[in-house]
Amino acid sequence: MNLNENERIDMLYSSDIKIIQSAEVFSFSLDAVLLAHFTQPIRKKKGKIVDLCAGNGAVGLFLSAKTQAHITEVELQPRLADMAQRSVELNELTKQMDVLNIDLANAERYLRKDSFDTVTCNPPYFANLDNSKKNENPYFAIARHEITVNLAKIIEVTSGLLKMNGKAYFVHRPERAFELLTLLEQHRLAPKRIQLVYPKKRREANMILVEAIKDGRQQGLRFLPPITVYGENNQYSSFVREILYDGKKED
Amino acid sequence: MNLNENERIDMLYSSDIKIIQSAEVFSFSLDAVLLAHFTQPIRKKKGKIVDLCAGNGAVGLFLSAKTQAHITEVELQPRLADMAQRSVELNELTKQMDVLNIDLANAERYLRKDSFDTVTCNPPYFANLDNSKKNENPYFAIARHEITVNLAKIIEVTSGLLKMNGKAYFVHRPERAFELLTLLEQHRLAPKRIQLVYPKKRREANMILVEAIKDGRQQGLRFLPPITVYGENNQYSSFVREILYDGKKED
Repeated sequence: MNLNENERIDMLYSSDIKIIQSAEVFSFSLDAVLLAHFTQPIRKKKGKIVDLCAGNGAVGLFLSAKTQAHITEVELQPRLADMAQRSVELNELTKQMDVLNIDLANAERYLRKDSFDTVTCNPPYFANLDNSKKNENPYFAIARHEITVNLAKIIEVTSGLLKMNGKAYFVHRPERAFELLTLLEQHRLAPKRIQLVYPKKRREANMILVEAIKDGRQQGLRFLPPITVYGENNQYSSFVREILYDGKKED
Repeated sequence: MNLNENERIDMLYSSDIKIIQSAEVFSFSLDAVLLAHFTQPIRKKKGKIVDLCAGNGAVGLFLSAKTQAHITEVELQPRLADMAQRSVELNELTKQMDVLNIDLANAERYLRKDSFDTVTCNPPYFANLDNSKKNENPYFAIARHEITVNLAKIIEVTSGLLKMNGKAYFVHRPERAFELLTLLEQHRLAPKRIQLVYPKKRREANMILVEAIKDGRQQGLRFLPPITVYGENNQYSSFVREILYDGKKED
């Protein structure tokens, strides 16, 4: 396994997954861990999962620990796709996973329409407004801002790839939640489960996790118990400690 | 003040509002208290508020304690509208409030379009499906099931009554939340604040509060800190005690 300059190997202890990171270009965040945790695993071995906007592959790598389904990572940036591919090799997951270094707008040239059981996506959170402050590092700018893709395209591609009753999982910022839900409705996707993530007690949510089903009915949305990231002592809450470290529940 | 048979006067201690109730036909629930608490008061004295599906007037009566704006209660059922009217008189609010015993589908015959600052509504929660179990008591059946009105009509009328940038407040069940949000989007209403209500810790939400603005933009939705109704001891949480009794915060 070759590590490039300024790369390191991190570990998600709760699943024993190793992941190549680089502070220069991309490191996964709690968002990816929570999305993978929120995603319901496919039981059948022949299932097919695709992770869009995969970055260094974190969501797919974490998912590999809880399903035997095949996982395809789709990432536009060659350097990130290469990191993801090397992490797949590092974890000896080349039979279960592959990495496609493509623009997701072209996904249907490479991936069969209406064939996936699950699509996951941790998309760029910020609209690409002319006046928005962007990171000067282009790796971060593309990961955080809708420079190369926008939410409407992501939802359109997601819906196209999913088979009927297939499920999509998204993590996003609450301020974009209505746009996300409206786009789901426009693309034959109905939200089934939502989980809000709050940084601390008595604070507003700063993350939303959404599960949607293709061709599902509008009724029946459930809001799971809220996740609170930090306790009163500014330490990770027991829930977050557990999914990061597989630690014991303490509160 | 005449009380009819089987009526009683209850009190919302936190606002000193008295309200005529009857176990036979209608009693307000925590939902109404939470909706009134969630509703942002109009600052200006000449503001206009309308409460749709008013029942015995609980939401409007509770709101009267935190605004000087005029409040119109719209209730279809004559017996409930009569209870609401007598509660208005009991609280000496006849200058601030009136009660219209009309079908909200005809609201625009009585109320000026595009003229209201605020619309509130605690609607019937359950779709009027042929196979749904309905209460044999017609008062309860109409309050709980979409027998005389449905959510689409409520949202259409709400949007029609609101002036530009006017605000609508709804309480509903999570399982109808996506339908509610989709209808908002179809009627020029954009959700701005959502608050989830959970019965207890580690349980799914059983109520959702939504604030929407007429002709607002899609971005900028906020999720307020979650409300938990009962504590570990099965007593009301300090938050709920406070809005019911104006009690001290204890946790």
